[in-house]
Amino acid sequence: MIEDKLGELRERLATIHDINAANALLAWDQQTYMPEGAIADRAEGMATLSRIAHEMFTDAKTGNLLDNLKDHFDADSDERAIVRVARRSYDRATKLPAALVQDLTRTTTLAEPAWAEARAKSDWNLFAPHLEKIVELQRRVAEAYGYTTHPYDALLDEYEPGLTKRQIEIMFDELKGGIVPLVKAIAEQNAEDQTAPLHGNFDEAKQEQFGRDVITRFGYDWTRGRQDRTVHPFCINFGSSDVRITTRFDSTWLSPALFGTLHEAGHGMYEQGVDPKYRRTPLSGGTSMGIHESQSRLWENMVGRSRVFWQRFYPDLQELYPEQLTDVSLEDFYRAINEVRPSMIRVEADEVTYNLHVLLRFELETALLEGSLKVADVPAAWNAKMTEYLGITPTNDAEGALQDIHWAGGMFAYFPTYTIGNVLAVQLYEKAIETHPTIPDEIAEGEFANLYGWLRENIYQYGSKYEPNQLIERATGRTLDTAPYLRYLHEKFGELYNLN
Amino acid sequence: MIEDKLGELRERLATIHDINAANALLAWDQQTYMPEGAIADRAEGMATLSRIAHEMFTDAKTGNLLDNLKDHFDADSDERAIVRVARRSYDRATKLPAALVQDLTRTTTLAEPAWAEARAKSDWNLFAPHLEKIVELQRRVAEAYGYTTHPYDALLDEYEPGLTKRQIEIMFDELKGGIVPLVKAIAEQNAEDQTAPLHGNFDEAKQEQFGRDVITRFGYDWTRGRQDRTVHPFCINFGSSDVRITTRFDSTWLSPALFGTLHEAGHGMYEQGVDPKYRRTPLSGGTSMGIHESQSRLWENMVGRSRVFWQRFYPDLQELYPEQLTDVSLEDFYRAINEVRPSMIRVEADEVTYNLHVLLRFELETALLEGSLKVADVPAAWNAKMTEYLGITPTNDAEGALQDIHWAGGMFAYFPTYTIGNVLAVQLYEKAIETHPTIPDEIAEGEFANLYGWLRENIYQYGSKYEPNQLIERATGRTLDTAPYLRYLHEKFGELYNLN
Repeated sequence: MIEDKLGELRERLATIHDINAANALLAWDQQTYMPEGAIADRAEGMATLSRIAHEMFTDAKTGNLLDNLKDHFDADSDERAIVRVARRSYDRATKLPAALVQDLTRTTTLAEPAWAEARAKSDWNLFAPHLEKIVELQRRVAEAYGYTTHPYDALLDEYEPGLTKRQIEIMFDELKGGIVPLVKAIAEQNAEDQTAPLHGNFDEAKQEQFGRDVITRFGYDWTRGRQDRTVHPFCINFGSSDVRITTRFDSTWLSPALFGTLHEAGHGMYEQGVDPKYRRTPLSGGTSMGIHESQSRLWENMVGRSRVFWQRFYPDLQELYPEQLTDVSLEDFYRAINEVRPSMIRVEADEVTYNLHVLLRFELETALLEGSLKVADVPAAWNAKMTEYLGITPTNDAEGALQDIHWAGGMFAYFPTYTIGNVLAVQLYEKAIETHPTIPDEIAEGEFANLYGWLRENIYQYGSKYEPNQLIERATGRTLDTAPYLRYLHEKFGELYNLN
Repeated sequence: MIEDKLGELRERLATIHDINAANALLAWDQQTYMPEGAIADRAEGMATLSRIAHEMFTDAKTGNLLDNLKDHFDADSDERAIVRVARRSYDRATKLPAALVQDLTRTTTLAEPAWAEARAKSDWNLFAPHLEKIVELQRRVAEAYGYTTHPYDALLDEYEPGLTKRQIEIMFDELKGGIVPLVKAIAEQNAEDQTAPLHGNFDEAKQEQFGRDVITRFGYDWTRGRQDRTVHPFCINFGSSDVRITTRFDSTWLSPALFGTLHEAGHGMYEQGVDPKYRRTPLSGGTSMGIHESQSRLWENMVGRSRVFWQRFYPDLQELYPEQLTDVSLEDFYRAINEVRPSMIRVEADEVTYNLHVLLRFELETALLEGSLKVADVPAAWNAKMTEYLGITPTNDAEGALQDIHWAGGMFAYFPTYTIGNVLAVQLYEKAIETHPTIPDEIAEGEFANLYGWLRENIYQYGSKYEPNQLIERATGRTLDTAPYLRYLHEKFGELYNLN
């Protein structure tokens, strides 16, 4: 009886998975190969698939099956996890009134072009009325989802199941205490810009070749993946058997394609590494945005911006670009890719200053939600925090409060996942090294099997079986912990900037 | 009231269209860019979308709406055509018992690899038991669909709505009378093989450039299309706003990519040219396989193998391949691409012998269906007809009765659409020239606007609004007519082989 119900639920969820996977392929195609003239039909087609999947999922039959299957399986069983994750999505999908969903869609559809225009003209007033409406809707969404302590928790739960605003605050308090002084100390060094080696004329085909070679060694599986070119790089998948990354190449600047490839491959290996037994179930993908970001950041930063990595790979890069790099020493290249310098734009920020950009957004978001900050006052508040945290002040809103699309898209509570990713990346990397102390030496030899294996064993394979807190605790013995991250930043950049 | 029902039907059909279009993208992706490891999940995903579309379409609600809307619109209205085409598909989709559909799927799924092995080993006995089963199932399918005169009509209706076996027989009788003597006369010339100029070392990028340039001039719209590489070339579309062609390149042989590109672009321009008012309706695509093939053949053969075309484009090709073609005269090149020589393999056949290959298959198919030919006797019958029609005899079944995949896939009654396409291509081309007598001169100048415009006006725009017979009669004043085609063959090849 229970087996029948479980079978029914599984089949229902598998069908919905297939529809969503097809829709994801439509999205991938739109970004890569779709002819421009197809955009209107594509939008319609994707809306249709979304609607069918939504209708099928929110059907009362799904709810009945979930009710029937509640508490029927062992606490640590896959079945229990499937029911839990499906229940969570079902509750979220059914709690929002249809009118509110429509209002959200309409509002963000109008807000996104308005934001683009506002940013182009650096005119906050063009975007402000849209943001007012969005903040109000976010409050209503939080009410509809429900929460015990703070509306932010209800929104955060979408991206980080089980995490709370309070935990984020503690994380940021600890980070602020460690990072703000570090930024100041580095700024006081008045070091010259050392990024020159990254700029020049770098044949794109060779950039691609280098990136492919590196991520192949990492463990990215090309029989279940591919790499294409897009304006904005991303990773997307349709199950663990088809995980695609995209890259942006710049023939005058090494960084975007190089670190972008390592970053997206980190996301990709996570999805490829999910146990195939979870295919076509709600457990088949990564468990949260923060965990996902930890996997991309680990390969991009802990590995890809480390000295040991470049001991092995810098000669390869020099061989590809003898004219550009023969006279650049390994040490100079290492400094170039680890330059710390407060800047206006989050997506271009270095490892040290990055989280302060996120903190600022988190503080403004919560204040907006609580009503203690008015939309009209966001630019001033933004600039004041930039000055306080980073010692620089935007000269206009395009390089200030208008730089990110997230709010226009209604993505409140998303930003902290970037920092959670940074913090967890180090926490996990440290634990992996504790288990396999030879990992850094292996990286210096171009060997990644132990690191990849540890991540697959402790993170990848589980997909969404465990919530982020639980997954991290199982993997490292602790929940989210900023200490390793702060230690990492102080050691690495203390050495680079002679702060000790 | 009727307007509401029509709106409901339109919405239902639009949803189904969107699902089918998504599934077509999955199919395109599978042939072009999908990583190999994704094959099992992709098969499952496509089966899911097919099932959902089928369930939605065959739901009694669709039938009720079609009943309600019957005879409610003017005879020549779009609404009437939508209801008619949807009704026809609905009847076909609902008439087959589920058990028969399953039996068909299971049988062909097993038959296709068996056929591949049989062909590889040239062993008819490996395939024969599968074909026995398939013939039996085709008979049951024909019974389920129903027919008045011959079971073949029921199967043919899938590919050529409204056409009958009798009409195909008349067509082939006329063709046989004209073509068999022509093949004999050409064979008696004992002309040397003149295809040498097509073989050599031809850079693929230049082949691609040449093909793209030509089909751009034809009128293929790249804002609603693209070209990719696949093992087997095809054209696929997801509405008229996204029509993609694929090409196979061979660096040692010009023909596959060159004529393949013109051929697939012909299919593509048909789909691109459908009136946008039909988007997301059952009228949004070409009306039959034969009409479709007429569009590909027209651009491939009437245009692409004509002397006037090469007067304009041969110098371009010579410029791309000076080493290979400088010493080859226009006339020698023209002869090379129009070489007539009986050969074993249909897909490699020239314009003159091609239809005899099709005739042979048509005769065997009808005999199999009627039971007058046993599966075990197919190879002998095949070889006898090859000897009779083409004067050559297969030395084994791999180059004989096992060469095509169609029967293994359960595609009975499909072959004649190739010949219908050849015949109609000339019938339409002749009419277009009657309307615009300057078309050949324009082609010699690389101008195709009048030809493209005439086809768009008379064929493309209508999508599936008219059945093939009706469409051809509207366009040319006559139904399917072999006279122009036979005249064309005799004139063109009579001149080439000095037969007059």
